[in-house]
Amino acid sequence: MNVDCNDLWQRFVQVRSISEKLAEPLEIEDYCLQAIPETSPIKWHLAHTTWFYETFILKPFLADYTPYHPRFEYLFNSYYNGVGMQFPRPQRGVLSRPTVAEVARYRASVNKSLEKLMASLSEHPDAMAISQRLVLGLNHEQQHQELMLTDLKYNLSLNPLYPVYNPAPLAHAQPVPGARYIDIQGGYIPTGVDASANAFCFDNETPRHERLIQPFSVADRLVTQGEYLEFIQDGGYQNPLLWLADGWAEVQQQKWCAPLYWVPDAETTGAGSSFSVFTLHGLQDFDPNLPVVHISYYEADAFARWAGARLLREDEWEMLATAQCPTIAQCPTTAQTIKGNFFDPQRNHPVGLSESLSQNTVQQLYGDTWEWTQSPYQSYPGYRAAEGAIGEYNGKFMCNQLVLRGGSIATPQGHIRATYRNFFYPADRWQFSGLRLAR
Amino acid sequence: MNVDCNDLWQRFVQVRSISEKLAEPLEIEDYCLQAIPETSPIKWHLAHTTWFYETFILKPFLADYTPYHPRFEYLFNSYYNGVGMQFPRPQRGVLSRPTVAEVARYRASVNKSLEKLMASLSEHPDAMAISQRLVLGLNHEQQHQELMLTDLKYNLSLNPLYPVYNPAPLAHAQPVPGARYIDIQGGYIPTGVDASANAFCFDNETPRHERLIQPFSVADRLVTQGEYLEFIQDGGYQNPLLWLADGWAEVQQQKWCAPLYWVPDAETTGAGSSFSVFTLHGLQDFDPNLPVVHISYYEADAFARWAGARLLREDEWEMLATAQCPTIAQCPTTAQTIKGNFFDPQRNHPVGLSESLSQNTVQQLYGDTWEWTQSPYQSYPGYRAAEGAIGEYNGKFMCNQLVLRGGSIATPQGHIRATYRNFFYPADRWQFSGLRLAR
Amino acid sequence: MNVDCNDLWQRFVQVRSISEKLAEPLEIEDYCLQAIPETSPIKWHLAHTTWFYETFILKPFLADYTPYHPRFEYLFNSYYNGVGMQFPRPQRGVLSRPTVAEVARYRASVNKSLEKLMASLSEHPDAMAISQRLVLGLNHEQQHQELMLTDLKYNLSLNPLYPVYNPAPLAHAQPVPGARYIDIQGGYIPTGVDASANAFCFDNETPRHERLIQPFSVADRLVTQGEYLEFIQDGGYQNPLLWLADGWAEVQQQKWCAPLYWVPDAETTGAGSSFSVFTLHGLQDFDPNLPVVHISYYEADAFARWAGARLLREDEWEMLATAQCPTIAQCPTTAQTIKGNFFDPQRNHPVGLSESLSQNTVQQLYGDTWEWTQSPYQSYPGYRAAEGAIGEYNGKFMCNQLVLRGGSIATPQGHIRATYRNFFYPADRWQFSGLRLAR
Amino acid sequence: MNVDCNDLWQRFVQVRSISEKLAEPLEIEDYCLQAIPETSPIKWHLAHTTWFYETFILKPFLADYTPYHPRFEYLFNSYYNGVGMQFPRPQRGVLSRPTVAEVARYRASVNKSLEKLMASLSEHPDAMAISQRLVLGLNHEQQHQELMLTDLKYNLSLNPLYPVYNPAPLAHAQPVPGARYIDIQGGYIPTGVDASANAFCFDNETPRHERLIQPFSVADRLVTQGEYLEFIQDGGYQNPLLWLADGWAEVQQQKWCAPLYWVPDAETTGAGSSFSVFTLHGLQDFDPNLPVVHISYYEADAFARWAGARLLREDEWEMLATAQCPTIAQCPTTAQTIKGNFFDPQRNHPVGLSESLSQNTVQQLYGDTWEWTQSPYQSYPGYRAAEGAIGEYNGKFMCNQLVLRGGSIATPQGHIRATYRNFFYPADRWQFSGLRLAR
Repeated sequence: MNVDCNDLWQRFVQVRSISEKLAEPLEIEDYCLQAIPETSPIKWHLAHTTWFYETFILKPFLADYTPYHPRFEYLFNSYYNGVGMQFPRPQRGVLSRPTVAEVARYRASVNKSLEKLMASLSEHPDAMAISQRLVLGLNHEQQHQELMLTDLKYNLSLNPLYPVYNPAPLAHAQPVPGARYIDIQGGYIPTGVDASANAFCFDNETPRHERLIQPFSVADRLVTQGEYLEFIQDGGYQNPLLWLADGWAEVQQQKWCAPLYWVPDAETTGAGSSFSVFTLHGLQDFDPNLPVVHISYYEADAFARWAGARLLREDEWEMLATAQCPTIAQCPTTAQTIKGNFFDPQRNHPVGLSESLSQNTVQQLYGDTWEWTQSPYQSYPGYRAAEGAIGEYNGKFMCNQLVLRGGSIATPQGHIRATYRNFFYPADRWQFSGLRLAR
Repeated sequence: MNVDCNDLWQRFVQVRSISEKLAEPLEIEDYCLQAIPETSPIKWHLAHTTWFYETFILKPFLADYTPYHPRFEYLFNSYYNGVGMQFPRPQRGVLSRPTVAEVARYRASVNKSLEKLMASLSEHPDAMAISQRLVLGLNHEQQHQELMLTDLKYNLSLNPLYPVYNPAPLAHAQPVPGARYIDIQGGYIPTGVDASANAFCFDNETPRHERLIQPFSVADRLVTQGEYLEFIQDGGYQNPLLWLADGWAEVQQQKWCAPLYWVPDAETTGAGSSFSVFTLHGLQDFDPNLPVVHISYYEADAFARWAGARLLREDEWEMLATAQCPTIAQCPTTAQTIKGNFFDPQRNHPVGLSESLSQNTVQQLYGDTWEWTQSPYQSYPGYRAAEGAIGEYNGKFMCNQLVLRGGSIATPQGHIRATYRNFFYPADRWQFSGLRLAR
Repeated sequence: MNVDCNDLWQRFVQVRSISEKLAEPLEIEDYCLQAIPETSPIKWHLAHTTWFYETFILKPFLADYTPYHPRFEYLFNSYYNGVGMQFPRPQRGVLSRPTVAEVARYRASVNKSLEKLMASLSEHPDAMAISQRLVLGLNHEQQHQELMLTDLKYNLSLNPLYPVYNPAPLAHAQPVPGARYIDIQGGYIPTGVDASANAFCFDNETPRHERLIQPFSVADRLVTQGEYLEFIQDGGYQNPLLWLADGWAEVQQQKWCAPLYWVPDAETTGAGSSFSVFTLHGLQDFDPNLPVVHISYYEADAFARWAGARLLREDEWEMLATAQCPTIAQCPTTAQTIKGNFFDPQRNHPVGLSESLSQNTVQQLYGDTWEWTQSPYQSYPGYRAAEGAIGEYNGKFMCNQLVLRGGSIATPQGHIRATYRNFFYPADRWQFSGLRLAR
Repeated sequence: MNVDCNDLWQRFVQVRSISEKLAEPLEIEDYCLQAIPETSPIKWHLAHTTWFYETFILKPFLADYTPYHPRFEYLFNSYYNGVGMQFPRPQRGVLSRPTVAEVARYRASVNKSLEKLMASLSEHPDAMAISQRLVLGLNHEQQHQELMLTDLKYNLSLNPLYPVYNPAPLAHAQPVPGARYIDIQGGYIPTGVDASANAFCFDNETPRHERLIQPFSVADRLVTQGEYLEFIQDGGYQNPLLWLADGWAEVQQQKWCAPLYWVPDAETTGAGSSFSVFTLHGLQDFDPNLPVVHISYYEADAFARWAGARLLREDEWEMLATAQCPTIAQCPTTAQTIKGNFFDPQRNHPVGLSESLSQNTVQQLYGDTWEWTQSPYQSYPGYRAAEGAIGEYNGKFMCNQLVLRGGSIATPQGHIRATYRNFFYPADRWQFSGLRLAR
């Protein structure tokens, strides 16, 4: 990787500042919420992303570095057993200390040490490793920026006051025409990234390899809330024949009857439609033209079966996405070439289709909502995790999860690419996860 | 009840200000902690005690009163089904809003409305009921002042940084001589309070009735940490024959091997003794002369069996306490006549015996630690709960709990009396609960 | 205790044979059921009662006794930590071996060894201890005879085929007149048994001591199913104000809406009434004149509150019962002097009132259903458990349970007495537990 | 499918009788065990396999057929929501009725009705569908024959008496040489079955499609118990870096420290080796030359990582297996062409390598133990489940499970084939599941 040092540092400064801007609208009290083990406090995200640089760059590479606090290695380690024990994840919300102000000082201190290290990087014997880890750290922090929004949303949602993170009014989506299916020729298609590529990617995107893809048809847009409402009204949540066995068990146990954040009007005082929807802009009227979001894989799969369709496989999705943005070398460094509704401080909710569909074009591949694929998250043939604790980043999660593709309204600009693999458990709903149909 | 209005208002102002002073040392982040369903956030206590006056005084008795916020009735109702639904207790920690500042405004607003109501109380047709409920509200708030300390202590204790609530250094306890047993003559002894008494008491202390108490012997002081350590070192936590069946099951399941807050030195870096102890003053050296505290009923009972003794019954305790402070009419209004270590902003931990024991005197009946009795919490013969929601205050808890007596270092001055009945489940340990032996 | 050896042996033979007769109607498959940890398999009861004699008599007192099987000490120990580890209670149903036939051989073998020991009892230095333990063992086996019926009933009840244990038809109860309250004078009343009494009792009935009982009124009969149905139809299970806090939590969690074994007709095909009732005689029509049975303490308490009444305290009940059968020395040895519907192989369900009530007589104190009292199960003043493992029989359960009095249709003839204390957790419903009102 | 009717009926009679022979060594008590929801009682298997024919053949196709019992449709439905509600799986062990004898009568009755139907099959308008469903039913019953053994084994294993199902002595395995890796060329390889093939397969084996397989190396035999013991002795169960994240969580929670059924000698009285092993032949000495079995996917995966290897993918396995038995049409009908240690009434435990390895031959692909693959169980491209309830057979389980290949010592002769896909959750250990290494 040949990265210009100044550029990298500028990018670091920019990414770091976005994390802090994300938290700006919050009250101190909001920083500490953790409603379920999965949804960590904002304060924890701010500290953990800092811990990542401290642990994997400053400690090994900055001479005479003294850790900011002797217990932070333990407190802010997420899951790296190679580093040591971790404070229990379900109890992150119980840590009132360090305070928000102290975490800000921690961030500033680590930033300063990194600046010192980077200032003389060219003379450092491990300059390449340091650069690579800083890039990894940036991408890591961007992933947590998305989680900050999704975790915060969940944590606020349990409050009957429906707190508003972003007071800007939400414009209604434009009317969406019926979905059309576009026929795709398959073939022997390369998938994934060549590890020697001159651009950053996560190790789970490697190695590049060929797949045989059968011909298929794909819907030209995401499924909308209005379409999902039809599924509900048709008894979708009451019909076991539409569901995977584990999905049906989950429906029964969790008493699911709508996507996460859909609030039946009976619980509030709305009128005119049957649901309101909790968003980071507060409780909103139901908008049938927005893409459906915050559904589990089980719900995506059941909807598809109800619709006589199926979900895409991840290689099918990647083939489509690559066609829109041919090589990894181009895309991530020129983020503007990837069109889609990504993170935007003005709007923290999917936007929907912004223009009428041109015939035979697959829209919304990127942004708005992640797309559940039917592909279990597993290693590509020949995959090898990195040595040491950093090898725990991705590989140990390759079981029981499914791949999502394309990024969402909460994904930072420039973070996504055609080969990017996100993954969650099939029952998870708190991400901005939606679906596209295929046949 | 004949209460002078000015005096009552002065007392109200004083009690209210103590709640706020209790919270003063805290960071905003500390106000929101709830580690387990039982240990509510400080912010919630500040709001709920306010809700109590609003619900039971302002709404029924202040003409044209507009509730401060339409959802607070739901958010801050603890358990009064007669008032309506309650926000789920285990999720009080998930409410970042209203903020601490907003709760302070809520308190001020309700204070102001109460002041208005009290200013013209003499002309109010329900003056007596209002006065009585204000006195009940004060006592209720004092109970929550104790809970603020015990809940906070538990919530902070899970943080490996061992946060310090009170930075004042803890003086060591004076050496404690061996306990001596004092023989007590029993007889037909009156217990409880005559409902017509001209002083406040909770309904669970009524009615006054006679009990037949057998002769017994009672230890002249509380059990110490040093004595409890001997129990541990003698294998007390490994010997099922010392335990109640349900207690032994709890020991196995919770892996108890010492009182709550005893931290084995192996977990920290101490030396010279086998445990450190977490307190509101931070982690402290083990002091054998302090009374043992934060033990469950099961542990108290097992210790007593190991020592060849038993716990007191509540009527035995009350008989001893009444002898030291003869009538309810005197004691609560002249709190200074009850000697003991109660709440003191300088010291938030038991003090221990402050003077050498005079022969044949029962010491430490009041204060330092609550004393587990072997008496299940049940109604006195002829007990009747109040009408309406306020009748839910005590009566519905008269099952599965045991009575504790005497108050603790966290009990506000003037709140306790000889007939006062506290109650907790036998596995509860987060109160300042200790024990005294009897035979 | 002065027991004639032949008589004792005859009684032993008789009690033992009743256990086996109880099991006679069963299929082999029925012997092994354990639906919940509390409801042990019949086979286990047959083995455990045998284990009791083997452990507490043969092993210590029969010279050169070889245990029947080296692992039975572990397999059939219920809860005696003083004897050793116990096979986990919840998994008793997983033991297909020893088979039913093997357990029968175990019973026969232990019987034979006991016969040998008893044949020369007069020459044995521990003759008195042996006799006492045999009597204890008999009473222990009788307790398990009741549990055999209640456990079996529960275990069969989960089978949608509603298996019939006793095919004899159930006669309808006679019409029951409205309950009348009878006024009782209180006073200083002796309670419990003098340990030196010349008759068997459990240690939890000792020592005899005086209690002060206030005047009270008591209903002259048990509450009926018809009365309980009114409670249901009046919304009793939907009104939290009628319930203890822990009871209401249980109602919500368990979704209770009727006594155990009441099957809404919607689930079967009945007509003409709203419930059928599962019994040991199979599914039966609802009979409003039968006493209500299989309710928890919480339900008994809620019903009483709804009816403007309360439950008896155990000393009140004992005072009434003693009046009907004055001394312990008479009653248990002449069981026929205690009138009531007890175990009868022809009828394994409460019978109800068999004659019209004579004015001012308390009926049904004994038999038909156990009566929940509001008295927590605790030791009497001066109680001491026996030394050694046998001391675990009763004492270690004196926490979290409530006392029931009077025996039921499943209690063996001659087993009950005025001072007899049964005890269960407040949520337990699988015993033949009912209630009587008092004021 | 062109099946000769007589042959089919003979095969039916033979398969049915094997189910009954499997149960012959059992006591009645053994038929009813269900230790965990997954391990159904033998009696249930005998009834459910019968229910399958009754539900899917007799009810739709035999004119005037009267179901054997009106509640059996509910009681013995495993998971077919299209048929109706199901008796809860975790409570199958609570059904003492119908008895074992009654289930035998149920089996005989359904057999008889089927015989009647088959006798005039040629004249039946649905002859083809009936034949196909009978073949499906046979294969279904064979799957349950394997489960009868694995469920029984688990259910017996919890009994400290270690009951013996098969008293025949277990011969020791022959010494096993070190594993050698054989290099395999990949390529575009057909996988799965063409739905039009003239032989039975499950729908999850269809459709046939091409896969691109990279070159790989495969061990020429299964991993042995001796090798697995080295993993344990090297701290494999204590090193989180060897484990998938979910696997490590399972190790911690379940306290796994060896394969299922390995009993540390400390728990018994063995000597000379560190473990004994529970088998269907009773407790046995540890034999290092036997293949390791009863491990979860997590353990297989961790062992492979420890060994610097990986598990096979299912298409790799199938490619190897197909090479040994080229076409589906040949193999299943001539079962003898598939060599391996399958079900044998004389020996209910893996046999191990029976001859010295010939160089460059992959041994033990079939039989002895199922091989965990790293392939999540999902549909093949173009897969379509059957219409109606029978479509629930396989498709709805295609989530959260992993594929196992090759059959085991419990798999009936003639049931397995190269394309056969078995599937279990990654934490499941009660199947005869082992592993083979690859690179």
